[in-house]
Amino acid sequence: MSVIDTLIDRLPDGRVLTDPDVIDSYARDKTFCEPGKALGVVLAGSREDVVTTLRWASEHRVPVVPRGAGTGLAGAATAGDGSIVLSLARMTAIRELSPADEIAVVEPGVITADLDRAAREHGLMYAPDPSSYEISTIGGNLATNAGGLRCVKYGVTRDSALGLEVVLADGRVLNTGRRTMKGVTGYDLTGLFVGSEGTLGVITAATVRLRRAPESPPATFAAEFGSLREAGAAVSAIMAAGCQPSLLELLDRATLEAIDDMRSIGLEAATMAMLIGQSDATDSAAAVARMQEVCEANGAAFVAVSSSPAEAEELIGVRRMAYHAKERLGACLVEDMCVPRSVLPDMISAIEAAAVRHGVKICTVAHAGDGNLHPVFIFDRGASEPPPEVWAAADEVFTRALALGGTLTGEHGVGLLKKRWLALETGEVVEEIHHGIKAVFDPLGILNPGKAI
Amino acid sequence: MSVIDTLIDRLPDGRVLTDPDVIDSYARDKTFCEPGKALGVVLAGSREDVVTTLRWASEHRVPVVPRGAGTGLAGAATAGDGSIVLSLARMTAIRELSPADEIAVVEPGVITADLDRAAREHGLMYAPDPSSYEISTIGGNLATNAGGLRCVKYGVTRDSALGLEVVLADGRVLNTGRRTMKGVTGYDLTGLFVGSEGTLGVITAATVRLRRAPESPPATFAAEFGSLREAGAAVSAIMAAGCQPSLLELLDRATLEAIDDMRSIGLEAATMAMLIGQSDATDSAAAVARMQEVCEANGAAFVAVSSSPAEAEELIGVRRMAYHAKERLGACLVEDMCVPRSVLPDMISAIEAAAVRHGVKICTVAHAGDGNLHPVFIFDRGASEPPPEVWAAADEVFTRALALGGTLTGEHGVGLLKKRWLALETGEVVEEIHHGIKAVFDPLGILNPGKAI
Repeated sequence: MSVIDTLIDRLPDGRVLTDPDVIDSYARDKTFCEPGKALGVVLAGSREDVVTTLRWASEHRVPVVPRGAGTGLAGAATAGDGSIVLSLARMTAIRELSPADEIAVVEPGVITADLDRAAREHGLMYAPDPSSYEISTIGGNLATNAGGLRCVKYGVTRDSALGLEVVLADGRVLNTGRRTMKGVTGYDLTGLFVGSEGTLGVITAATVRLRRAPESPPATFAAEFGSLREAGAAVSAIMAAGCQPSLLELLDRATLEAIDDMRSIGLEAATMAMLIGQSDATDSAAAVARMQEVCEANGAAFVAVSSSPAEAEELIGVRRMAYHAKERLGACLVEDMCVPRSVLPDMISAIEAAAVRHGVKICTVAHAGDGNLHPVFIFDRGASEPPPEVWAAADEVFTRALALGGTLTGEHGVGLLKKRWLALETGEVVEEIHHGIKAVFDPLGILNPGKAI
Repeated sequence: MSVIDTLIDRLPDGRVLTDPDVIDSYARDKTFCEPGKALGVVLAGSREDVVTTLRWASEHRVPVVPRGAGTGLAGAATAGDGSIVLSLARMTAIRELSPADEIAVVEPGVITADLDRAAREHGLMYAPDPSSYEISTIGGNLATNAGGLRCVKYGVTRDSALGLEVVLADGRVLNTGRRTMKGVTGYDLTGLFVGSEGTLGVITAATVRLRRAPESPPATFAAEFGSLREAGAAVSAIMAAGCQPSLLELLDRATLEAIDDMRSIGLEAATMAMLIGQSDATDSAAAVARMQEVCEANGAAFVAVSSSPAEAEELIGVRRMAYHAKERLGACLVEDMCVPRSVLPDMISAIEAAAVRHGVKICTVAHAGDGNLHPVFIFDRGASEPPPEVWAAADEVFTRALALGGTLTGEHGVGLLKKRWLALETGEVVEEIHHGIKAVFDPLGILNPGKAI
């Protein structure tokens, strides 16, 4: 009996897939990171399946690579040789949704937007909204501490996680956190698991915080600037004016050109950056009017303000097109970094300089209110991985981000992709502590080895 | 040369205090927890002093009890026999305050309200405001993950902590987190230190998030109810109506009587509970008018609404008097728990029932919007610690809180005081993980032994 057969034996029928092509489709995320040859895929249907799988993996020292929908952008769900892929995508129950306490208890396979929709039936919302939220899972969002557009106002996934049910490497079940808004009993294990990319345990349920959904429709604006510096100054001024945007996105010239090329948006030759912002406050129109004034005071050439939900959707639609527009240009290395808001223009200038110096096409969008940038490095579609000049440009960009007081990843995580730069930010003491903590939860090192730390 | 002399030798002059009376005054917090005989007190003036002290403590296996201003309410700063008290109260520099990035870098001895005032000079605020914030330090607030009145809108201390400089037990310096609004590089070590009560390391600097200060003066209301259940229903309804109070406090009849006894507030015989709320939104008057309506719809007998900042202060003043009014009644065991908001009335009823059953006077106030209650158990001032009937009543109250889906502490921490109940909430697996994590940071177990976990 092969090792994988002993697992098939222990799990209910149909839980383990061993077809090589199927395995391969479960062995990668949205990056180009090339997987190894995994032994099989477990489609967990319950916490018990997860317990069984991890006990078996501990006995046989088999690496386990947990995954949700595989929409990750850092390679954290890339399966290695001889590993088992543990998919949580079938655990889709919303176990509880309490409007009175504004919490939900959900399984990891729940699609993020589905939870949001379920909450909205009660006048609530689930705030974190990574761009992938129509296809990504809560479990994956928790594993990477996903951000999103709304987090400029509502915070990231960690800010909505109250408690977790986690299966440890040896199959024991750990319950962290609470159902209450506040609580300080013991160490913050919930926060520790969020963003740990499946290296400390496998989340089988989460208690998350819901928030009141805005009652009035949001108001939206799009402002065109003749320079990045003006757009950056407008971002700082909007935040300083206390406008509380529920979304504040910046698109650079390269991104706007890619969009205009895909579907004409009437891009002016002089437009070097666009800022798209939204308010979901009770007085959203007034808040957007104020943001418009601030943009104009900071040199905006033109500001469009929505006068209907349809027009608002159209303005936001420009931002939504960004990724598809870039994909038309070639293969994409989608990167992620966060800098203090005041140096956003410096960071974008550094990205533009690196693009020129290394002869690489880079299109940048930013969750500008948070200082979180996504430079997308374009390269030849035929290449299996980014060519040396892309890595050289990325090296330069990340070195600059750290020099400006920034961090290597704002919301995508470290996975495999960022490990080449990790030591630049963390240093020796942090690395030692990381590995010490990892050993407490996973002494045999079977949980997503080689990722995150 | 005695052990303490070897420390005196290594530190700058005047840093170590050895007078027994002085030591005793530094060996306790605001609880009645009786300290042991500490060896001395280090008044750290710099990170280097902390490094020297911890290296020495590691060499000599001397327990170290870190402390800020000693305003804690769970005994976490109680010094044990043979320990060194490490006071961070003299490290009071605000190293940096960046209005553009809305962050500050502060040393642990900064008084919380001082940071808030410094921020307000730039139109910003430091949001966390434990009741002690005029006398407590940021370091102590971080160590306990302090809450406060405003956290119903702005979150607790952890929600404002971006990064930390920590000296580990062996004297190494660890830098956690970041200066940016978002960031997911590595495990959330910042969150792990916040609330760890000095058991994992000694915080020597913190990068904290500031927020825009409200521009208009807040509006305030006080509502009187004939029953706790109505007041509890009003709390849920206010939150459900999306009123976003910046403060929402509930006072029970026993507390109101104590206040009325100290300074007449014209307490009606039929008033069983009072709700005091505030809005700091741009349209604060409208928000308070809405809260008033909700209170009236939920049976409030009378609602006073402030028409000036002075009147607002007067209404809030009633809440501020609560603690002093209770202190006049006898010695106080100030307790702390948090329950899901919907069961707030059940929890208060359970507290009242325990008071009757055990013949103990209990006065309760609650940060009601968060479901965070502070029942204060009154006992004879002559007693050195609470008598058995107080512990019996507290046992009953905490058992009920857990049964209602609550937690043992919302914002005060576990310290020494809550350890008697800790296992009821955490269980075996959590305890094992706690101790595993503790051993990673502090393998010799010298940091605040016996506290928190």
